[in-house]
Amino acid sequence: MKYEREALASLLKILERIYDQMSRGEVPEIDIATRTKYNIEFDEKSEVWVYGDRRSTRSAKTVRGAYMLLRMAYVIGFLKEQLKANKSSTLRELYYISENWGMAKFDEQAESDRLIEDLEILTSFQREHFRIRPEEDGATVIGPLRIRENTRRGIREIHCQEDVGEGGYQIPVNVDNIEFIDHDADFVIAVETGGMRDRLVENGFDEKFRAIVVHLKGQPARSTRRLLKRLNTELGLPVVVFTDGDPWSYRIYASVAYGSIKAAHLSEYLATPSAMFVGIRPSDIVKYDLPSDKLTDKDIQALKAILTDPRFDTEFWRSEINLQLELGKKSEQQALAKYGLDYVTDVYLPERLTELGVLK
Amino acid sequence: MKYEREALASLLKILERIYDQMSRGEVPEIDIATRTKYNIEFDEKSEVWVYGDRRSTRSAKTVRGAYMLLRMAYVIGFLKEQLKANKSSTLRELYYISENWGMAKFDEQAESDRLIEDLEILTSFQREHFRIRPEEDGATVIGPLRIRENTRRGIREIHCQEDVGEGGYQIPVNVDNIEFIDHDADFVIAVETGGMRDRLVENGFDEKFRAIVVHLKGQPARSTRRLLKRLNTELGLPVVVFTDGDPWSYRIYASVAYGSIKAAHLSEYLATPSAMFVGIRPSDIVKYDLPSDKLTDKDIQALKAILTDPRFDTEFWRSEINLQLELGKKSEQQALAKYGLDYVTDVYLPERLTELGVLK
Repeated sequence: MKYEREALASLLKILERIYDQMSRGEVPEIDIATRTKYNIEFDEKSEVWVYGDRRSTRSAKTVRGAYMLLRMAYVIGFLKEQLKANKSSTLRELYYISENWGMAKFDEQAESDRLIEDLEILTSFQREHFRIRPEEDGATVIGPLRIRENTRRGIREIHCQEDVGEGGYQIPVNVDNIEFIDHDADFVIAVETGGMRDRLVENGFDEKFRAIVVHLKGQPARSTRRLLKRLNTELGLPVVVFTDGDPWSYRIYASVAYGSIKAAHLSEYLATPSAMFVGIRPSDIVKYDLPSDKLTDKDIQALKAILTDPRFDTEFWRSEINLQLELGKKSEQQALAKYGLDYVTDVYLPERLTELGVLK
Repeated sequence: MKYEREALASLLKILERIYDQMSRGEVPEIDIATRTKYNIEFDEKSEVWVYGDRRSTRSAKTVRGAYMLLRMAYVIGFLKEQLKANKSSTLRELYYISENWGMAKFDEQAESDRLIEDLEILTSFQREHFRIRPEEDGATVIGPLRIRENTRRGIREIHCQEDVGEGGYQIPVNVDNIEFIDHDADFVIAVETGGMRDRLVENGFDEKFRAIVVHLKGQPARSTRRLLKRLNTELGLPVVVFTDGDPWSYRIYASVAYGSIKAAHLSEYLATPSAMFVGIRPSDIVKYDLPSDKLTDKDIQALKAILTDPRFDTEFWRSEINLQLELGKKSEQQALAKYGLDYVTDVYLPERLTELGVLK
């Protein structure tokens, strides 16, 4: 598969550097970008948020640092064997495999997950290229798009309306194994909840509006974000994100559009900066008189955190978030059902998509 | 689609009975099975757990009962309109739709969910036949099976190895729209976690052992359980359930094999009494020296609850559960990776499946 040999070469280079340091009689160390929200900055060129200049050092001067380098050596060794055997594994399996590494055994999965992130940052490759799979599932796609997937069982050509059931096409873990063959789409709509995804499909939204409907399943997996990015850049399709109207949903939008803080090193591959928010806005709660729930303390906390998040530092978000704190309410995308099952596809979405210039 | 007209007729009968009671000058009431674990019993004929004889009455003598009957009338009216318009809706949408019902509006979704369950029990149909969809997703299937799905967009014929990507075939919400055309399978294996499902697929378990691999995604959706039931009864295939070794996983097995307490009225449609447990057993933690975690207080509570659950009243479960409480440990299916990525498909599953007579 694509990039795997290069990724391995890059992993082995890390070990060579450590080996060289040791053979020069130096205490080995590794330098890596610090991962917090205080160290992400906007990259004008790629229009995504990436890590800034702050760096942390992992040095064998401390026992903790020495363990970390030892584990890294074991993990890279395992990844090399795995690639040779034409296998892949989950983050969870990797953690269990370390059971046999004696002192290098991980104490909890958070450690091995973090080490894989370190390797991504150090090599500029993605864990999919090391053949490390996430536990989460890919979501689904339905719409006027024909793809070719390179599977272990051979090539599969699939049209995402004609060759799939009502459940749609299941996005595989490694989206780079997909090629886009052709399409009749005008835009892509990424939908937070399964209920709303099913509503759009039942109402024939994908056919009527020439839309590719992607189900996000809550906070989207990397494979889903990667697919959206590729649909946007390779096919030149606008991407809109349709979510509930609460802080968790705004974060879902942000992770699609700007990348997540935890994976800012992958923003270039995963983020779709031009993605537009068509989710429920706090002002919609008033405008459409939507059924709503009271904000919980956790919601309020999360909204306040968003006000200090650089990804949301725009006039639109500040005024909507402040309005929401004032209203003390949140509302779900399915709340539009108050006006009947067709309202969302006949009125709400066409209005908003026209406003945003996605529909002409 | 199948059964929908009959389901509607049966719904309308409920209202006719209420109407008749009222026109005779009686206070209307409805009699319905009580839903608790103290009112489920084993039905020898169908070999599943069903509700017993305890019944509750919803009567308009109380304000609460009167509201309940009023809401039922509104819901049945909505279901009738929905069927006429060739639509379906989610449980969540139904709740929001009631916004326009004045006094009959639901205060929270739990109420409308429960009312739909009442209607299932009263009519002996399933909510899918009323075109009420759950919010959860169907899971996926991969294996030597060819199906025909009747979608709103026409008939789709799909082979669950040759016509799908690595993600597999996505199970639709209404499994009764699927027909089985042909298959080359010897058995069905239902797998709890996505990581293990991907492991079996990567290792070619479905091809080598002629197995249909169904991903349960944790506690399985009704559509998934219905599919397993149909694969078992219509194709005569044994079903085995492969889960983690903790109380939540035993409950997953139980919901496949015996039906859930909340939906005991549907056990006949959803439960596969002959399903065998091939998940991690407490005795496996010792036998295979598996990496394990300490039981939490919640785990211990849940294990103790299982000891009083009639569905687990067998020698096998009693001794395994007691052993687990003694060990104070639980273990996951992916823990088998301690012995390498192929151990589960080369050793663990073949051994256990031979023991159980599924493999010869």
